[in-house]
Amino acid sequence: MTELLEKYFDRLWPICRSITGNGLRESFRILQEIIPLELLEIPSGTQVHDWTVPREWNIRDAYILTPSGEKVGDFRRNNLHVVNYSAPVSQKISYQELSAHIHTLPHKPEAIPYITSYYNERWGFCLPHQQWTSLPQEGEYEVVIDSELSEGSMTIGHLLLKGRSDREILLSSYLCHPSMANNELSGPLALAFLYTRIAALENREYSYRFVFAPETIGVIAYLSMFGETMKQNTDAGFVLTCLGDSGNYNYKRSKLESSLADQVAEHILKQGSDEYATRNFSVGGSDERQYCSPGYNLPVGSLMRSVYHEFSEYHTSFDNKNFISFRHLEKSILKYMEIVEAFELNGVYKGLIQLGEPMLGKHDMYPSSASPEVNRAEVMRLMHFLTYADGNTSLLETAVKMNCHISLFANVVKMCLDKGLVKRES
Amino acid sequence: MTELLEKYFDRLWPICRSITGNGLRESFRILQEIIPLELLEIPSGTQVHDWTVPREWNIRDAYILTPSGEKVGDFRRNNLHVVNYSAPVSQKISYQELSAHIHTLPHKPEAIPYITSYYNERWGFCLPHQQWTSLPQEGEYEVVIDSELSEGSMTIGHLLLKGRSDREILLSSYLCHPSMANNELSGPLALAFLYTRIAALENREYSYRFVFAPETIGVIAYLSMFGETMKQNTDAGFVLTCLGDSGNYNYKRSKLESSLADQVAEHILKQGSDEYATRNFSVGGSDERQYCSPGYNLPVGSLMRSVYHEFSEYHTSFDNKNFISFRHLEKSILKYMEIVEAFELNGVYKGLIQLGEPMLGKHDMYPSSASPEVNRAEVMRLMHFLTYADGNTSLLETAVKMNCHISLFANVVKMCLDKGLVKRES
Amino acid sequence: MTELLEKYFDRLWPICRSITGNGLRESFRILQEIIPLELLEIPSGTQVHDWTVPREWNIRDAYILTPSGEKVGDFRRNNLHVVNYSAPVSQKISYQELSAHIHTLPHKPEAIPYITSYYNERWGFCLPHQQWTSLPQEGEYEVVIDSELSEGSMTIGHLLLKGRSDREILLSSYLCHPSMANNELSGPLALAFLYTRIAALENREYSYRFVFAPETIGVIAYLSMFGETMKQNTDAGFVLTCLGDSGNYNYKRSKLESSLADQVAEHILKQGSDEYATRNFSVGGSDERQYCSPGYNLPVGSLMRSVYHEFSEYHTSFDNKNFISFRHLEKSILKYMEIVEAFELNGVYKGLIQLGEPMLGKHDMYPSSASPEVNRAEVMRLMHFLTYADGNTSLLETAVKMNCHISLFANVVKMCLDKGLVKRES
Repeated sequence: MTELLEKYFDRLWPICRSITGNGLRESFRILQEIIPLELLEIPSGTQVHDWTVPREWNIRDAYILTPSGEKVGDFRRNNLHVVNYSAPVSQKISYQELSAHIHTLPHKPEAIPYITSYYNERWGFCLPHQQWTSLPQEGEYEVVIDSELSEGSMTIGHLLLKGRSDREILLSSYLCHPSMANNELSGPLALAFLYTRIAALENREYSYRFVFAPETIGVIAYLSMFGETMKQNTDAGFVLTCLGDSGNYNYKRSKLESSLADQVAEHILKQGSDEYATRNFSVGGSDERQYCSPGYNLPVGSLMRSVYHEFSEYHTSFDNKNFISFRHLEKSILKYMEIVEAFELNGVYKGLIQLGEPMLGKHDMYPSSASPEVNRAEVMRLMHFLTYADGNTSLLETAVKMNCHISLFANVVKMCLDKGLVKRES
Repeated sequence: MTELLEKYFDRLWPICRSITGNGLRESFRILQEIIPLELLEIPSGTQVHDWTVPREWNIRDAYILTPSGEKVGDFRRNNLHVVNYSAPVSQKISYQELSAHIHTLPHKPEAIPYITSYYNERWGFCLPHQQWTSLPQEGEYEVVIDSELSEGSMTIGHLLLKGRSDREILLSSYLCHPSMANNELSGPLALAFLYTRIAALENREYSYRFVFAPETIGVIAYLSMFGETMKQNTDAGFVLTCLGDSGNYNYKRSKLESSLADQVAEHILKQGSDEYATRNFSVGGSDERQYCSPGYNLPVGSLMRSVYHEFSEYHTSFDNKNFISFRHLEKSILKYMEIVEAFELNGVYKGLIQLGEPMLGKHDMYPSSASPEVNRAEVMRLMHFLTYADGNTSLLETAVKMNCHISLFANVVKMCLDKGLVKRES
Repeated sequence: MTELLEKYFDRLWPICRSITGNGLRESFRILQEIIPLELLEIPSGTQVHDWTVPREWNIRDAYILTPSGEKVGDFRRNNLHVVNYSAPVSQKISYQELSAHIHTLPHKPEAIPYITSYYNERWGFCLPHQQWTSLPQEGEYEVVIDSELSEGSMTIGHLLLKGRSDREILLSSYLCHPSMANNELSGPLALAFLYTRIAALENREYSYRFVFAPETIGVIAYLSMFGETMKQNTDAGFVLTCLGDSGNYNYKRSKLESSLADQVAEHILKQGSDEYATRNFSVGGSDERQYCSPGYNLPVGSLMRSVYHEFSEYHTSFDNKNFISFRHLEKSILKYMEIVEAFELNGVYKGLIQLGEPMLGKHDMYPSSASPEVNRAEVMRLMHFLTYADGNTSLLETAVKMNCHISLFANVVKMCLDKGLVKRES
């Protein structure tokens, strides 16, 4: 999978995305090769809860010409050079006047910062601090931003992959950042590739809702359309972001703090061999803030590697292909798939025999592995499963009680279902 | 008590018990000298929940004659030598053919293993591994098992010792193992002698249900008869087993995990000076699995010393009189009696004076021990008892809050009841 | 404030208070200069719950004349010398006879103990042990206690300071001890001065009930009059005592153990920089025992410094002005004020925008401090406040989740209320 991930990464990387515009649409068209997303276009000016969809932004070129005619802040070399959503400009200007429009990171002098101004019309350039401070303070500069802010629409991609049940798992990532790798290309790439694995599952129990939307405004718009349904149907959800770097896993709980999403994710992490940490919900984050806003309060957490704001490459030109690895990204996808499989297997089962234990021999229920140790462990799991198959306890709870990975119950659950010894109640 | 325990142990030891048969009946007749059990006979073929009572098994003799005429595996020397429930056999046979019927413990070469085959008709012998491997592989062997499998019945002993209340404490042990000491003679012996102590209690509050049954099938049969009543009436219960060795106490919680049984047992252990450990319910155990099966889920735990499966003598000829001591067995019985006394004293009390504290002097409630320290501690207990005598809080909860043994409240409870200052509500 | 505290301390110190009598009334008149208490007079003989208001006690003088004519145990030099509530006596008496009426502390030979006998009519003197043992055992002693026990009344002071809401915070201290400093003058002094701060609060949300009563009998009498109302209205309460010494803070929880009183007090202590400890309710204490008696069980805890019974000066002449400092007393008052302010700010808020987050820019909600770090912290608090402003979560819970002092939310709460972005629901 890593080669394919890299191929799509390389195609998506150079595109200048924003919360609206053709870069966003072009990115969606590439993702549609992996996941058959339905695209929604929300017109500029649409009121979505407390927010309004802004005008559509498109940009062709942007640069600064120094007094000596050198081109710096060249958008075509790195789209981070222009403040995302910059209004058009074309004028001659002094160093002093220009400085009010320049963004740098003095403590990280070689990095281009990532700056946006969606709701406050202005223009600006982002430069490495050392470059900006080396430019001459005398003479005339020329600035050109060949952009456009016009009535148009904001694009959102989504897909509801139906399962046997109407109960939904929400899987959401955001698409609006220009050329940065961990935050955010790792998120939408992981989500698209996770789709291919889930779509291949036989007999899916859950329905899966995939959402790719511009951060904040996109998810608010999406919730204004589908939020009521999601409130009814969502059993758990996750925001996929920051999944490609080499950091340990970090799980950020939903605002509900011990929702099913949290229980499953923490079970999978605990039973796995990778280092991880968990933390409670906080507002300094991404779209979980909208999903968990008081009127929805969906059970949505986020399994990440390094946490946004907490790695120094975050929101700079250093968050690039060198910072991530496709091997780590693949492992993140597989970890999410482990979570999905746990949801599929989890459920409340009820045994046919509730009074006393079933006579296993009579039902031909003894496993027959060659190894006595394997057999004994399997019989223990079988008996544990049956004693907790009371129509109230979930398989996850049973696995947690036995302190073993829920997937280890897959065989005994299948066997009991096949023999009619248990029924799945929910 | 230790001498009497030993006397009964010595009489019960040599009998070849099984889940049915005359050895079981003979054992019950001996126990009836201590506790006036009512015996139930459940006919072979009776359907009890998912199980069927098997045919009755009786055995007179069993042995192997080696090619040189030596008698090995002699049932009359150790009844573990024959697989319990073996079908009759009398034939000449080669070493190779015989080997399919021989059970040994290669990692414990001097021990005879304990093997049963209740529901799969076959025959077999159990030998020390070193003995089996030293026998000649050439020549003709003769095997004789003079047993009988025939329509008959399974015997269960029980007794309901009534108290003021219909609320019941279940005390259960199993009787079906041939000559082994800790698992199981320690269990039924402890239970019978515990009976004599409980029967001697004046003004018993609780009713006590004593059950002696063959493991698993016996308890399932018992539950099929009395389970519904027990579900209505049982406040707590315990399975008595593995009580004679020198190990620390181990308390295994009921499946409910914080049932009244668990709370009382753990309080008594915590306030005592013996080392102990607690563990959650698991299926690898004894009859608590039936009592806690989903359709009953009674509040039944088990206070043991060394836990079945976890001591190396378990289910071998090494679990013999040398492995246990009657001093330890007696201490186990007294520990159970401490638990019983805690149940008797526990209850929800309500003070006559609910508004403000009672004026102790007016009610002549000040204790008058010679020692001021004793008096102060007693007054503190009295005031604690009264402030929590709110008609909702149990005495156990009060003792837990004050972190002192519930029995320390016996005096103040009696004094307050005598003076009409509190009533017992439940 | 420390000078004023000392001035009032010095005026209250020499007065011989008891649970009834003119010393108590004189003390109330002094406190009325600080807090406009309404005084209640409960006649002797009045039945108050399980208790009866005793006769009124007044005393003019008391002393012992030794055989050599030396005056010892002189009430006018230290009012602890006489057993509080002593019946009148005037007689000549031998050392042996006298010794039955003498109280000393052999392990603290220089201290005069504090002894009372309210409900058992007797007389007695309290002396330093070393003084008593140095007196001649031969010769005639003369004892004089010029006291009076007569029909009268018990005085209680109280005040209900109304706020917008009828929900009450109870603030209670006791007034009945003669010349001792930490237990008890620190309590009523702190309570009176706390009143002046609370009365100065603008827009008080809560109503505050101030109670100054003789310990035990006074509070029982007060509850017999106002207990039903208090049961309806009280959200939290505190007993103020032992607040002047240099010990760390100790918070004793209400009997409910996690009442709002407990939550707020523990939050304030945890977020502060002073050392502290918490402990559960126990009966060995003061008036919290009455407030928490089963029929009321009010959410009343107590924030102290050194705990009664646990400092060696307790109930002796060593609990004097040297043992306390007015700086510590002032800090205690300010700590209580912090608790009061937390109650005032706490509440359940509900945001106008429940679906998705509000668009802060549109509501002009971005703070504009000069420091970006302050701004970022303030925005985080604003967003945290808004995401938990769900009509169910209290501000205290939000502050606990964010692990920051509730007072840090004062600005954002005010801003959101002013802009109509949240409403206070309770």
